[in-house]
Amino acid sequence: MNASKLIGVVDIGGTKILAGLIDQSGKLLARRRIETLAEYGAEEVIARTATILRELLHEIHAPEEALEAVGCSIPGPLDCSSGVVHFSPNLGWRDVPFVDHMQRLFDVPVVIDDDAHCAALGEARKGAARGMDYVVYVTISTGIGAGIIIGGNIYRGAHGFAGEVGHITIEAAGPPCSCGNFGCFEALASGSAIATRARQAVIHGDQTVLSTLNDDPTKLSAEHVVSAAEEGDVVALRIIESAGTYAGIGLAAVASAFDPQVIVVGGGVMGSGGIMLQHARKGFLERTISPVGSLIPIVPAALGEESGLWGAATLLSLAKR
Amino acid sequence: MNASKLIGVVDIGGTKILAGLIDQSGKLLARRRIETLAEYGAEEVIARTATILRELLHEIHAPEEALEAVGCSIPGPLDCSSGVVHFSPNLGWRDVPFVDHMQRLFDVPVVIDDDAHCAALGEARKGAARGMDYVVYVTISTGIGAGIIIGGNIYRGAHGFAGEVGHITIEAAGPPCSCGNFGCFEALASGSAIATRARQAVIHGDQTVLSTLNDDPTKLSAEHVVSAAEEGDVVALRIIESAGTYAGIGLAAVASAFDPQVIVVGGGVMGSGGIMLQHARKGFLERTISPVGSLIPIVPAALGEESGLWGAATLLSLAKR
Repeated sequence: MNASKLIGVVDIGGTKILAGLIDQSGKLLARRRIETLAEYGAEEVIARTATILRELLHEIHAPEEALEAVGCSIPGPLDCSSGVVHFSPNLGWRDVPFVDHMQRLFDVPVVIDDDAHCAALGEARKGAARGMDYVVYVTISTGIGAGIIIGGNIYRGAHGFAGEVGHITIEAAGPPCSCGNFGCFEALASGSAIATRARQAVIHGDQTVLSTLNDDPTKLSAEHVVSAAEEGDVVALRIIESAGTYAGIGLAAVASAFDPQVIVVGGGVMGSGGIMLQHARKGFLERTISPVGSLIPIVPAALGEESGLWGAATLLSLAKR
Repeated sequence: MNASKLIGVVDIGGTKILAGLIDQSGKLLARRRIETLAEYGAEEVIARTATILRELLHEIHAPEEALEAVGCSIPGPLDCSSGVVHFSPNLGWRDVPFVDHMQRLFDVPVVIDDDAHCAALGEARKGAARGMDYVVYVTISTGIGAGIIIGGNIYRGAHGFAGEVGHITIEAAGPPCSCGNFGCFEALASGSAIATRARQAVIHGDQTVLSTLNDDPTKLSAEHVVSAAEEGDVVALRIIESAGTYAGIGLAAVASAFDPQVIVVGGGVMGSGGIMLQHARKGFLERTISPVGSLIPIVPAALGEESGLWGAATLLSLAKR
């Protein structure tokens, strides 16, 4: 096959590299995912990313010259204009000149952006918010963050911190958050918040299947709680109902601020739908003023692990404009 | 004086009309404020507005033909594209075709917008956020609302409801709000919230100067409480400290969402600075993640009652683009 112009798209996460090749018509011709180890370090992750892209080119019988540009989704904070990842707690990187490194391996334009921004762009281009220009993507996993699309482009704010919605206070006298505050959206509705409440219930001696899942309650995860709730465990149901209701309150704050066409939720805890999303929708309707709540649907992300890849592809077309 | 091209600027409020004439160089040549009565109705308010503009033209010896356009700030919700005020609780108007009416009196382009949008534009053009492109203006008076400026223009959201920040929940189990919910920013930090807490203190028999200000505690206003606090009344101080801290939490939510260059606060309660603003700044720093809080100053509006007039003038220049 002679694919004359291809773009490489990459989504780097805390434990994986996902990479693909997209042709001019916007078709994903090849993709591969590999697991990574925390000890790899930035240079090794970048080298492995380049290797995957080369192997994918080989797989579809395209010469290396066919690669026109590379777009990458990376957990931030990072500086997309200089191409430097200043500090990524998820990757353990500090001041990594990612774009420079990658351009030493491929002599083509390389653009990078924050994973929440890329997921939002991807869902707006090809996923649950396809064709929409005013989109908020909220990821609810270990932490909570958002990517904001306004007028079809990423909204960054004046200092690059727009969308830090996980640290909006929704219960001023609520439980402590990792940020040092109390009652943040993230402290009440994230995967960590759910896991913490499950551990507390087990340690407290509540009658729940959660106490049988792991000898060590500190190893209980939000996924355990979601499964237990879906099987009807009363304690797990109570935890998910509470976290879902708080998620609705947090999403309502987002809606009151931005009034988007849609709120897309991603991340392991709620992105797949289920009972937490039901409670979130109920809380959202209760906590938005009429008619805002009924105008803004809350929908799960549609692209699964590929939202970041499609976002990375969109970065390149935005950079060309 | 022969002012060849003038624009009329108007700010209509619940109890007043403020109108002025601005020349091409952006100078306010004349202005007048009149008080209005609730029973006036839309037609009378519009007729009186036109009369004031005619009198101001006369005052500066300009012919009526010098008037090129009229910009108006009006409490919404309203539809700026059709020029209809659908429903303004502050004015008691419903489905008033304001632009049509005004154009029957002056045959020139007339543009209208919501008062919070206009105040935000005015402060961004000539006031506390002069020259800035990313601005949130939050008015804290009887209610709480916001005008959002992104890229120098009003940000309305997908359905025109962006900036409904008064109904962001900041204390999920907090006191009831006029909207039917609990613990909204407005229920904890507005003028009404302050007045309610003052009444409760007086009825409860707390030792405070507030109990001597009015025979009827239902007539206590937020302004009474602010004055009493500034004179050292302990109960009033406690109320203002609490409302100020909650205001800081609400403003922190706004900052986490939008990351503006500045947050301008207007409205009777905090717009003039004072101890409530001090508590708000403290709460804001506590409730924003580093470095967001220290990057975004919270400043009082600088144009006093004229923010809306300058916003109305800016509407006209934006409409021309």
